[in-house]
Amino acid sequence: MKNARPKSNYLALNRRLDLKSHLVATFRIESKLPLKEIAQIVAGESSIGTWTEVGTLSESVFKRLSAKVIGLNTKKNLARIAYPIELFEPGNIPQLLSSVSGNIFSMKVVSKLRLVDLDLPLVYINSFAGPAFGIAGVRRKIKIPGRPLIGAIMKPKIGLSWRAHARFAYLCFKGGADLVKDDENLTDLKFNPFTNRVRETLRLARRAERETGEMKICAFNITAPADEMIRRAKYIKSQGGNCAMVDIMTIGFSGLQALRQAKLGLILHGHRAMHSAITRDPERGISMLVIAKLARLAGIDQLHTGTVVGKMAGSVEETVAINSFLKKPWGRIKKVMPIASGGLHPGLIARLYKITGPDVIVNFGGGIHGHPNGTLAGAQAVKEAVLAAVKGTPINKQAEDSPVLKAALKHWK
Amino acid sequence: MKNARPKSNYLALNRRLDLKSHLVATFRIESKLPLKEIAQIVAGESSIGTWTEVGTLSESVFKRLSAKVIGLNTKKNLARIAYPIELFEPGNIPQLLSSVSGNIFSMKVVSKLRLVDLDLPLVYINSFAGPAFGIAGVRRKIKIPGRPLIGAIMKPKIGLSWRAHARFAYLCFKGGADLVKDDENLTDLKFNPFTNRVRETLRLARRAERETGEMKICAFNITAPADEMIRRAKYIKSQGGNCAMVDIMTIGFSGLQALRQAKLGLILHGHRAMHSAITRDPERGISMLVIAKLARLAGIDQLHTGTVVGKMAGSVEETVAINSFLKKPWGRIKKVMPIASGGLHPGLIARLYKITGPDVIVNFGGGIHGHPNGTLAGAQAVKEAVLAAVKGTPINKQAEDSPVLKAALKHWK
Repeated sequence: MKNARPKSNYLALNRRLDLKSHLVATFRIESKLPLKEIAQIVAGESSIGTWTEVGTLSESVFKRLSAKVIGLNTKKNLARIAYPIELFEPGNIPQLLSSVSGNIFSMKVVSKLRLVDLDLPLVYINSFAGPAFGIAGVRRKIKIPGRPLIGAIMKPKIGLSWRAHARFAYLCFKGGADLVKDDENLTDLKFNPFTNRVRETLRLARRAERETGEMKICAFNITAPADEMIRRAKYIKSQGGNCAMVDIMTIGFSGLQALRQAKLGLILHGHRAMHSAITRDPERGISMLVIAKLARLAGIDQLHTGTVVGKMAGSVEETVAINSFLKKPWGRIKKVMPIASGGLHPGLIARLYKITGPDVIVNFGGGIHGHPNGTLAGAQAVKEAVLAAVKGTPINKQAEDSPVLKAALKHWK
Repeated sequence: MKNARPKSNYLALNRRLDLKSHLVATFRIESKLPLKEIAQIVAGESSIGTWTEVGTLSESVFKRLSAKVIGLNTKKNLARIAYPIELFEPGNIPQLLSSVSGNIFSMKVVSKLRLVDLDLPLVYINSFAGPAFGIAGVRRKIKIPGRPLIGAIMKPKIGLSWRAHARFAYLCFKGGADLVKDDENLTDLKFNPFTNRVRETLRLARRAERETGEMKICAFNITAPADEMIRRAKYIKSQGGNCAMVDIMTIGFSGLQALRQAKLGLILHGHRAMHSAITRDPERGISMLVIAKLARLAGIDQLHTGTVVGKMAGSVEETVAINSFLKKPWGRIKKVMPIASGGLHPGLIARLYKITGPDVIVNFGGGIHGHPNGTLAGAQAVKEAVLAAVKGTPINKQAEDSPVLKAALKHWK
């Protein structure tokens, strides 16, 4: 994040600005006005400006706090705007969003707007908590070095009783899953109450730990109003659990930050349901890269970033860029483990592994429970596929000695 | 909300479904697949389905919990999907969003998707807190019946010292504002610390109350991580304040619900900065009507819904529909006062009033502080314009006896 200065494909403006004391936002702007002019207007509305001159704005405030356009790329309609760091409250993600991605999306003079990227100064980055564990901390906690973690999503995503849920979770763990997670819409429901699910799943996870000699992670979905969410996180902790899952977009960043700041010692697993409502159109909204940066600041240990090869939209380049960001040094903020999730099955692992390397959680829902021989076989097949990918063994060769993997490859061709 | 059954412009399906026990979502879907087929797929992914058959899904769960397409309008690409109410946790907005507006936005088979509307069954509506005061409660609290409330936004939106902020707030109150609000990105900043601003603004608000004989509302922006947000709300309460402002979109619904559930006895004023990142493209994302419904469930007393006549995008029809929803009976959930904000000045009031009627907060930033004779005159001019609109006096006639209003009308032609 050091070099936020526009590169050769940008026309540079305000070259003397000290970027160590500025936050730089990159916008893609579509407007009838020339890019330079509309970029100035966007800079105004997202900092100290309004639509008419006001007597309350002094010359000195204007000089000290106004945002400046520092780079323009007219070919791609990109503008880079630098904001004095005094405009931002340390450690407050909602305030950051209200500033650089607030009213500007509503302006009539802008026909389309996208917040493409954010480059933050070190002092601001370090004002956030970041992940409590991060990639290294989670690996230390569960003692699995050097290979992707295997996640299993309970399916159907909603509808299992708590007993059935825990039983299937046990089969996943037994077959080789390192982590079992609730799906995005399973919270506290009549047929599957949260506390029952937590108690019973943890009981069977411990049994699987004894039987396999491996440590297991249970990611319980605590997505709820922030007060209730923290109560549920405390309940998980009280029962000896090690992880909570949240839907970061539907809870929002004030809830996510409060959860992290409650310091419960739980791994935070971040699902991103609803992100596409804001990230998918490349000309509007906010990029997933920006969302990932904010989630890392807030303190997610593990974040869904796309599969590259599964059922969901999103380009390979985008996911690679996001994963690369999550894994690189960033002030004192720990690294985040990306999660590949959505439509995965054993036949896709080798391709996925080539793109992601070992620091990834590979998540399977249908790709485990849809196995022709059931959930246990499904989890075993996935584990075989992951181990093969890590060793570099071709999947068909691995399948020669593994009937469950062979069956999986035949089932999902 | 009683009649969620598709009307004549929809092809009706699954007519026997009891809609009292179903939540109905209306989607606009663009896909290469025929509408009926893609609607079924969307219904699956947003309820109990996944991309492949799974052994863990029993016939009885499928029958009881699967979502059903109940209406299709192929001309407008609209589909109405009914979800069994058991799929939803009472009182949990994030879980609702994760279900009906989660992964479906990411599906490759869908090229564009918009959540257009939500019709909720009464039992579900009543599981939420809703506004603590609502329209009637706020009017009772500040003893202003039958006319629009006048709001003043401090400008520049960020940059004033706390002393200057409070002084200008005093002038607004003195001139006739009923409510003074922080802007969306002003929280706790070095040059304007939250606690100083609260103390000094409340002190001068009390002076203005004594001098004018009117009650005043100070809407302090507490947008922050949820734990900190609630601390700030408690601080406002401890200093005798009566209102807190939040940016509902950038804090997110888990934070908003937690704030309401903290039961602090403060009026909650909802700014919607960033909503356009998700609401503006009519073919994607989530409609502002849906956001407004969720904000009302969560417990906002006052909500920004567009000006119809100002600087921000949004159609007249849309704002009228939202305002109409906010003001109509809805289970046991109180009514919400809409706020018109963004680019307003005295010359626009008569037109605005014709559309909104008396139950509205008219907010002015530049339209007060940009007055050629300064903030006090600006507030006086606005008050004159509002009183004229309520009496039905033409604004130019009112201006004959009011130099400040005359100056305002001349300034913003």
